[in-house]
Amino acid sequence: MTLALNLRPPAAEAEHGILFHGTPQQRADQLCDYLALTAVERDVAGGTPYPQRQAVRDSGLLSLWLPQQAGGLGASWAQTYRIIRQIARVDSSIAQVFAFQFLMLASIRLYGSETQWQHYFKLTAHQNLWWGNALNPLDQRTVARKVDGGYVFHGQKSFCSGSMDSDFLIVSAIEEGSGKFLVAAVPTSRAGITLKGDWDNIGQRQTDSGSAEFNQLKVEDHELLMQPGPLSSSFASLRSLVAQLIFTNIYLGIAEGALAEGAKYTRGSSRVWSGSLANSVYEDPYTLLHYGEFWAGLHASSVLADHAAELLDAAWQQGLALEDAQRGEVALAVFSAKVQATRAGLDVTTRIFEVAGARATTAKLRMDRFWRNLRVYTLHDPVDYKFKELGEWALNGQYPTPSFYS
Amino acid sequence: MTLALNLRPPAAEAEHGILFHGTPQQRADQLCDYLALTAVERDVAGGTPYPQRQAVRDSGLLSLWLPQQAGGLGASWAQTYRIIRQIARVDSSIAQVFAFQFLMLASIRLYGSETQWQHYFKLTAHQNLWWGNALNPLDQRTVARKVDGGYVFHGQKSFCSGSMDSDFLIVSAIEEGSGKFLVAAVPTSRAGITLKGDWDNIGQRQTDSGSAEFNQLKVEDHELLMQPGPLSSSFASLRSLVAQLIFTNIYLGIAEGALAEGAKYTRGSSRVWSGSLANSVYEDPYTLLHYGEFWAGLHASSVLADHAAELLDAAWQQGLALEDAQRGEVALAVFSAKVQATRAGLDVTTRIFEVAGARATTAKLRMDRFWRNLRVYTLHDPVDYKFKELGEWALNGQYPTPSFYS
Amino acid sequence: MTLALNLRPPAAEAEHGILFHGTPQQRADQLCDYLALTAVERDVAGGTPYPQRQAVRDSGLLSLWLPQQAGGLGASWAQTYRIIRQIARVDSSIAQVFAFQFLMLASIRLYGSETQWQHYFKLTAHQNLWWGNALNPLDQRTVARKVDGGYVFHGQKSFCSGSMDSDFLIVSAIEEGSGKFLVAAVPTSRAGITLKGDWDNIGQRQTDSGSAEFNQLKVEDHELLMQPGPLSSSFASLRSLVAQLIFTNIYLGIAEGALAEGAKYTRGSSRVWSGSLANSVYEDPYTLLHYGEFWAGLHASSVLADHAAELLDAAWQQGLALEDAQRGEVALAVFSAKVQATRAGLDVTTRIFEVAGARATTAKLRMDRFWRNLRVYTLHDPVDYKFKELGEWALNGQYPTPSFYS
Amino acid sequence: MTLALNLRPPAAEAEHGILFHGTPQQRADQLCDYLALTAVERDVAGGTPYPQRQAVRDSGLLSLWLPQQAGGLGASWAQTYRIIRQIARVDSSIAQVFAFQFLMLASIRLYGSETQWQHYFKLTAHQNLWWGNALNPLDQRTVARKVDGGYVFHGQKSFCSGSMDSDFLIVSAIEEGSGKFLVAAVPTSRAGITLKGDWDNIGQRQTDSGSAEFNQLKVEDHELLMQPGPLSSSFASLRSLVAQLIFTNIYLGIAEGALAEGAKYTRGSSRVWSGSLANSVYEDPYTLLHYGEFWAGLHASSVLADHAAELLDAAWQQGLALEDAQRGEVALAVFSAKVQATRAGLDVTTRIFEVAGARATTAKLRMDRFWRNLRVYTLHDPVDYKFKELGEWALNGQYPTPSFYS
Repeated sequence: MTLALNLRPPAAEAEHGILFHGTPQQRADQLCDYLALTAVERDVAGGTPYPQRQAVRDSGLLSLWLPQQAGGLGASWAQTYRIIRQIARVDSSIAQVFAFQFLMLASIRLYGSETQWQHYFKLTAHQNLWWGNALNPLDQRTVARKVDGGYVFHGQKSFCSGSMDSDFLIVSAIEEGSGKFLVAAVPTSRAGITLKGDWDNIGQRQTDSGSAEFNQLKVEDHELLMQPGPLSSSFASLRSLVAQLIFTNIYLGIAEGALAEGAKYTRGSSRVWSGSLANSVYEDPYTLLHYGEFWAGLHASSVLADHAAELLDAAWQQGLALEDAQRGEVALAVFSAKVQATRAGLDVTTRIFEVAGARATTAKLRMDRFWRNLRVYTLHDPVDYKFKELGEWALNGQYPTPSFYS
Repeated sequence: MTLALNLRPPAAEAEHGILFHGTPQQRADQLCDYLALTAVERDVAGGTPYPQRQAVRDSGLLSLWLPQQAGGLGASWAQTYRIIRQIARVDSSIAQVFAFQFLMLASIRLYGSETQWQHYFKLTAHQNLWWGNALNPLDQRTVARKVDGGYVFHGQKSFCSGSMDSDFLIVSAIEEGSGKFLVAAVPTSRAGITLKGDWDNIGQRQTDSGSAEFNQLKVEDHELLMQPGPLSSSFASLRSLVAQLIFTNIYLGIAEGALAEGAKYTRGSSRVWSGSLANSVYEDPYTLLHYGEFWAGLHASSVLADHAAELLDAAWQQGLALEDAQRGEVALAVFSAKVQATRAGLDVTTRIFEVAGARATTAKLRMDRFWRNLRVYTLHDPVDYKFKELGEWALNGQYPTPSFYS
Repeated sequence: MTLALNLRPPAAEAEHGILFHGTPQQRADQLCDYLALTAVERDVAGGTPYPQRQAVRDSGLLSLWLPQQAGGLGASWAQTYRIIRQIARVDSSIAQVFAFQFLMLASIRLYGSETQWQHYFKLTAHQNLWWGNALNPLDQRTVARKVDGGYVFHGQKSFCSGSMDSDFLIVSAIEEGSGKFLVAAVPTSRAGITLKGDWDNIGQRQTDSGSAEFNQLKVEDHELLMQPGPLSSSFASLRSLVAQLIFTNIYLGIAEGALAEGAKYTRGSSRVWSGSLANSVYEDPYTLLHYGEFWAGLHASSVLADHAAELLDAAWQQGLALEDAQRGEVALAVFSAKVQATRAGLDVTTRIFEVAGARATTAKLRMDRFWRNLRVYTLHDPVDYKFKELGEWALNGQYPTPSFYS
Repeated sequence: MTLALNLRPPAAEAEHGILFHGTPQQRADQLCDYLALTAVERDVAGGTPYPQRQAVRDSGLLSLWLPQQAGGLGASWAQTYRIIRQIARVDSSIAQVFAFQFLMLASIRLYGSETQWQHYFKLTAHQNLWWGNALNPLDQRTVARKVDGGYVFHGQKSFCSGSMDSDFLIVSAIEEGSGKFLVAAVPTSRAGITLKGDWDNIGQRQTDSGSAEFNQLKVEDHELLMQPGPLSSSFASLRSLVAQLIFTNIYLGIAEGALAEGAKYTRGSSRVWSGSLANSVYEDPYTLLHYGEFWAGLHASSVLADHAAELLDAAWQQGLALEDAQRGEVALAVFSAKVQATRAGLDVTTRIFEVAGARATTAKLRMDRFWRNLRVYTLHDPVDYKFKELGEWALNGQYPTPSFYS
């Protein structure tokens, strides 16, 4: 990747102690090396990883996808996804909240006016802001009441990934009376916002995907991202595909991480079983068969994910001119990649132990974290319905109907 | 089960506070209810579950499989396995160390002289002893030196499940010079035995499957279980089948526990997805399809496990008259049950979340423990080689060759 | 099997030339040997296998399941299914029409009055009759008009397996006006019955499962099997379970036949691949792995099928006293066996070629017939719905609702 | 595809009666329409499809891959594979012998001298020649004896696909003494060549993959393709990858054909099962789920196959400068596509009946031909070893070792 560089020097006093330098890819490499150091212990600890979040900020990569004219690094979706996937190999929690930065910024681009996204893009790049999520459309407990100059949001919101330690939030609410789904951008520090910090889960433990409480939160008219708003066009409906392809790349990164750690363990520590015809585990037919199956499954996921990202980039270029059919082709490619990464990933993270052996289950390695992280995150929305939507295409020639999940 | 009862009253002051009463099955029910109370928190804690171990002692079930003439309850293998499986549904760590009681006693029966097993059986029943494991044949770091009146064992031994808080151990060592594999019964408290208490694993966290260190441990001649000794006959080689069927029943119990907890969660808390044609998750076609697949997989495992237990009981009755072919048929039945329980169990414990939904991943429920416990325990020996041995039968008409694993 | 024998001597002049003798099991063996001689060429030919049908008649096995007091051999369902499965190993078309003999007789037992089944049972045993099927409840094109002393049936009926060369038929029709589903027993030779002989299919090619046409067919009142009639009780509703377990055993027999033929080919003709560590295909790790998988899948099916047959025999003994719950348990056991045999069978009949090798695809062997026969017959009713019904049990504690398929 | 056109007018009197015209893609479309007309009946007949072969000749597509400077259409491998795949959707036998045209020409390019391939390329383009295969390296029954000016080949050769009705053959033999593997190009009509026409198989029935007999066949020195010869460089070893990617695309085409025909049948003729919540089969959740699974599997195969073809084209451009690593990456991509197409294809061609229903098994449709064709052709070399080689990469970082199969 050859991206223009406009990266701030890291705060010298940061706990992480890294002086990020070089290209975005080099900075991503530096970040991953740092995250890997404590990935195991932080999986035990859960909670908010402040030093690691600071490292992400200092890496300059929060502007990765932002256009260069807004002060960003101008990465394509394909380039952005590859960095997300790379981070997920060592730390899928950080990968998720990092990726949500771009999902939130994409929401602003797709739902807001040009004035709004120009504003927020520049603000984000210049102030190195990090956006958190409070949009969950399935949780309709937050209601919005029209008041002079804006709205008052009130109620709960669950699954607010990356909200802790964020600078801004994308929030949603249901308008009283109309039932309309409203989306807005607000500073996390605004009075009336309480982040509960109540995320304690079997996986993705440092994503802070807990709940938020809005207590008479004032939202200004100019903060509403409703011109043109969600699902207002084929283009606007790309948001769910951006999201689904984030998931896909993180699933894949998790599984690639498991495969890499498994292979390292097998090479370094595993023993060949006594009944084998091979002299070493390196040459054992069953071991090689399973590694081949794992690799084939992940390689397929990776080619599919890259292919989908290229289609997404092309569709994104169309802007409001994007036609339903092209949007539909992106959806098919994204869903296809997602189901492949889901199935292949669960297989690898479960069976990797069968080629690493019983000793690889020591708590010291916490190699189960790959399965736990993947298991949790692949439940975002049901894989059955992704297959069903692909089936609508295969049988009835009907593209997936745009929604917050499709 | 209608077993003769000869159960001691529980110690009134025991921390668990249960007054076990009734038939063995009723006592097993009481034990399971008690274990279930703290299964989640003890999965977090790991370590040795003293109160729960005391409850097992007080239940009287440590004599479950011992013959009535020795003061035991006289359960068949089939009956014993069913209790093991039941316990595994709520606590697979306790199930493992409980089951190993019978594997150790079976080892005495199969390897020792009649005088020895009569002695140890009665001692166990009368003193309510609990046997731990220090036999792992793959770990050959413990060596035995012949001395007057016995042997001195010296070295390390790994995977010593149930050794902590045990009364007696079955230990093994390699004889210096001859390389012979020696097995013996010794009191856990004997000088020269240090249990490291170093088991910290991603699953089966309260099995104390850590390491032991033998420092010039004296083993008396009469403690050696070498007349006739391991693998000395088809009958003696039933030990590995007893063990493999223990694993099978625990795998199955774990998966049944996951299915039960998943179904409870689905019924109580899950929501039907918006694209479903059904009004409730109870009627959702995909949810029902997956529950059907889960149930079919576990029901098959259960019928196979019961079938294998019946064949094992019949073979056991033969004693030294047991012929290779009958032993071979038991092996085929056991391995067949084991591979089915392994595959179906991993599928259920992984995919149960897909029908329970994302909220079921909260750490509060720790529903991942089923997968972790199963994943760890199914690595005991490679499933590939069980298939290979079944293939030897299918293709070449050759029964599994008796060994410590087959 | 030790069944009472009351078997007619075979017609000396029969084309098949076999003098059946000995026990039912011996006669089944003799029959299978004969059927195997021409199974390949008859798979090419399709049509009605008259000499083979005559052999079945002459074997005396058409009375296998009939009670001894009616002149039958008094086999249990479990014994009957085992013979069906054995025949299916070499000739699944004959197995199907042979098995339908007992499904038709069971229908008479379950739907008719005691007078009726006593009559037809004795008639069948004494005249060595063979019953064909014209009952397909999904095809409602045949209507019944009430006339004096009976009904007139008129219309088409599809999937009439075993109707060609049969002596009697079980036919069904929808009563005009009431829409009631009527079932009756009629001689195949009666005026108004035309068998089209139009079965030409990719599998089960000699089952004559073509269509029948009823042209103003007169059915006498005493031929109606409506006292108590279909689905009139838990007992009457055992018919679908008898049928589903027939399918299951034939699926299993087909797959066992494929495995046996594949193993014979591998042993006799296959070559080890150049990259193998083994010197012969007998020892090749992948070959053994796959044979192990195949065997495990079929062994599980077989244990499940036998288990279900035992439950069916016990339920059958209950007669009209059979309770819903016991009927439900039989249904769960049968469906569980059926889905296992379906999946394992399709796997074996597809992948057996991977261990036999490319040369095993020569048309001379027609080893594809196992897959074709299984593929066709497993479509009888959708496997998805069997899983769904098992899911209703697993999730909601609800037994399968009795119907013609469940 | 925009290829230069230099296509001869079709013989006016040809039995097929098509006047091919337009671009190569249009001519491929015309060819496929023609082949589809009789695909079912020709699957019954087997043998050599002369009119269809003439249509291939007249389409001008035998020069598809040949460079324009040689008089060919100049298609890339990616373009060539797409046409092969398209033909395989309707007629996988013709697809195979058509594809082998390019495998044979590639062999000349890779094994022969520039003078040779320039000669044979032009000859092929100008005389519209069709090349058949007699190279099978596993069959070493043909031996070569050095004589003045060349060799005499003598012996048998099996699996000679496309040899019947061909103009030239690529033949191989083992040199007496040296054991060297010799490859040569000879006219099919040369004295000493007898094609047995003995191919009768369960699938790929019109590929004429029978045996050839060489009776003192004279091969001139200038016909030997041994400068530089097989496996002489990374570039020369691309032949097996060209072949493996031919297989992959044909597997995929077969499965796509099955999916298309299944979907057409489901839409036109299938009924929704009575237990469905849907009103029509179009909306049935299980039907859609399965179509989604099928589509996802084939879409993945297709993206992988296209990806591999792009890598192959890039490697091909390198000529003798091709490095091992780049060749290795092509191999990984090709094998990955092949295993995916194999597994997904077998799944689709087996389970497509489950969504089409029992009536789709009528012999009239012969929908089993997809499974039979795929089953036969996927046995070319064992899929286990493709996984094993991918495993060598995943575990040991070792590229597949070039051979006739890898």
